[in-house]
Amino acid sequence: MSDFELHPRLARGSFPLGRESACRILLKDNALFPWILIVPEVPDGIEDLHQLDEARYRQVTALIRKASEFVSRQFKPEKLNVACIGNQVRQMHIHVVGRRTEDPAWPGTVWACDEKQPYPGELVQTIQAAWEGFRDR
Amino acid sequence: MSDFELHPRLARGSFPLGRESACRILLKDNALFPWILIVPEVPDGIEDLHQLDEARYRQVTALIRKASEFVSRQFKPEKLNVACIGNQVRQMHIHVVGRRTEDPAWPGTVWACDEKQPYPGELVQTIQAAWEGFRDR
Repeated sequence: MSDFELHPRLARGSFPLGRESACRILLKDNALFPWILIVPEVPDGIEDLHQLDEARYRQVTALIRKASEFVSRQFKPEKLNVACIGNQVRQMHIHVVGRRTEDPAWPGTVWACDEKQPYPGELVQTIQAAWEGFRDR
Repeated sequence: MSDFELHPRLARGSFPLGRESACRILLKDNALFPWILIVPEVPDGIEDLHQLDEARYRQVTALIRKASEFVSRQFKPEKLNVACIGNQVRQMHIHVVGRRTEDPAWPGTVWACDEKQPYPGELVQTIQAAWEGFRDR
């Protein structure tokens, strides 16, 4: 979809990690949690994963698996939280979040937590490089 | 896994809908939200979806798609919320929840909402029959 535009709220609160399987991969700008967003390039109105056709569904879920492996290896969390919610920003996006018992939202979810800590720039660059290395394995 | 045992907290708060693709399908006992739980029969310690091997991952994600289609057709929600969280009950389980702008948790998530309303028994039977009909299409 050459005319795909990332929702401004998703763009504003994140750093780009790359593009793969016709999805944007973003790092959410909150250093309290290792938090990846996957934004499939789909038309407006396709908001829920099951609305994708079977081939596209398999492609997107395979990318969710890959991003989950990345968060798991890179950040070594105790648990992953993976979700497609989109109640507020309706453009389809999938959260892949690494969780620890000592993080500020535990045992609740990150979506119920307002705490934020912007990333220092050099850490963003480290994570961007780590994703590139992981992606190209 | 013949020795698989459903976690008592999952069993206590739900009604069984069936078993498919070596997963238990449950209806969460909260009439405020149409809320399905999928519990893959996996060994203890396999808590995150990406820990499944590729074939099993595809099988479970295909069942998530089917349950999503069921919730969508049966309850006609405005949005689905689909998530694998498990911070409190570590036995792997996936939530498929139909959401409406007038439901008591909107626009927040159901996991941050303590409101509950037990199902009347006849409605549970209706939903169980609807799942059976949908499953066997």
